[in-house]
Amino acid sequence: MKPVDFSSFVNDLATKSGQAILPFFRTMLSAEDKSRGGVFDPVTEADRAGEIAMRRMIGTMFPSHGIIGEEFGAERPDAEFVWVLDPIDGTRAFMAGLPLWGTLIGLTRNGAPAYGLMHQPFIGERFFGDGGSAGYVGPHGERKLATRRCRSLADAVLSTTSPRLFETDLMAGYERIESAVKLTRFGYDCYAYCMLAAGHLDLVIESGLKPYDIVPLIPIIEGAGGIVTSWDGGPATQGGSIVACGDKRLHDSVIERLRG
Amino acid sequence: MKPVDFSSFVNDLATKSGQAILPFFRTMLSAEDKSRGGVFDPVTEADRAGEIAMRRMIGTMFPSHGIIGEEFGAERPDAEFVWVLDPIDGTRAFMAGLPLWGTLIGLTRNGAPAYGLMHQPFIGERFFGDGGSAGYVGPHGERKLATRRCRSLADAVLSTTSPRLFETDLMAGYERIESAVKLTRFGYDCYAYCMLAAGHLDLVIESGLKPYDIVPLIPIIEGAGGIVTSWDGGPATQGGSIVACGDKRLHDSVIERLRG
Repeated sequence: MKPVDFSSFVNDLATKSGQAILPFFRTMLSAEDKSRGGVFDPVTEADRAGEIAMRRMIGTMFPSHGIIGEEFGAERPDAEFVWVLDPIDGTRAFMAGLPLWGTLIGLTRNGAPAYGLMHQPFIGERFFGDGGSAGYVGPHGERKLATRRCRSLADAVLSTTSPRLFETDLMAGYERIESAVKLTRFGYDCYAYCMLAAGHLDLVIESGLKPYDIVPLIPIIEGAGGIVTSWDGGPATQGGSIVACGDKRLHDSVIERLRG
Repeated sequence: MKPVDFSSFVNDLATKSGQAILPFFRTMLSAEDKSRGGVFDPVTEADRAGEIAMRRMIGTMFPSHGIIGEEFGAERPDAEFVWVLDPIDGTRAFMAGLPLWGTLIGLTRNGAPAYGLMHQPFIGERFFGDGGSAGYVGPHGERKLATRRCRSLADAVLSTTSPRLFETDLMAGYERIESAVKLTRFGYDCYAYCMLAAGHLDLVIESGLKPYDIVPLIPIIEGAGGIVTSWDGGPATQGGSIVACGDKRLHDSVIERLRG
């Protein structure tokens, strides 16, 4: 049974949330600015404005659907259709003025990721997928997304949020991978998974993710031909420690090395 | 003596080099793709195409000027006016598909940085300055650039290319800074200096820079009210180990801590 085509509605969610978020990006006020009594935090304000815009639209169009959002928690999380929203994935990039954050919009059906979109409203680009295929539209055109072949760790380009992020018990596993790959890049958040789907990166390893950090990206990664699981090879839908590979043959050796 | 206003010509250089570089960005071929005999390297091709376009325009308009470029070396480096060019600063971001690289165009007069511009042609944004003022134009408007106030390391957001980059004798100094700041972000290359000029970051520390990595950025940083020097407080024009601060009061304590 194919899910209903929600792609046009998801694009509307992206457009509206982008309009709500963008006025807060690259403002001169920092998140720690005390000139207004320490109460104005542009990232939090932007996060909330984006999520409110999306929740309002979903509530009007699909009142029976559930919503799990970063800012305002869960409503009807056991509904058949549940929206999984992260208005600003990459808040530290947002704070530093870098357009390397994205708005993540996911839809699950009976708990399984069915559709996902990542929107970067400053650049004006969108990555989307339904698990079977994935696509891109941006300022210089559109195209189908496909991961690239990369069988060996020695040829792989890895991305992770920060080498400082892994807890002690996970660090050894991560370091076995980092020491084996060709190149490591830090700090890309949702962009790392989208670049993997687009065939520019081979491997993303992270820990401490929330479900809304990864659920919207699963249909994009899988739609582009990649694989994303927990470190022990189970489903990625619960967040936690995540490994994504563009080439499924690479995934086996990564899981093995993470185990040690 | 105020330098001639080269800003319109510099904008033309940026437009033409951007047109030359952009077709190579986010192509599916990796820099290590061997399918074409291992000879096609999109980053190198893009770097060359960008620099050739700029050298041709400079040679036609200002045949007496010197040029120092990343790809094709130095011509007349002792001329009164010398152009300092880095077609793609941030090649690793370029390779990974992230629009976090920039084309750097600098002009020195009698050895002193007089004008600089950073262009990101995929996003369509430009940061520029002449040492006295600095400005920005991008997809959502234009504005004056000004660094933000940040007196204390404990409040500072730091950026550096990679914590793995410092040689042994520099690592201790760098780590004294990283352990004292509020937040550290990795891998922004020229964007780190531009975000500092725009008031989103407080501190950039790097080592191993070439003159063309930093000379075009000096008039932007200084024009926005910041300061950029070598780690010992001398001129930044020779590259090497560099420290840039948005707030001059922060600079003193950083230099002191780097010394140990």
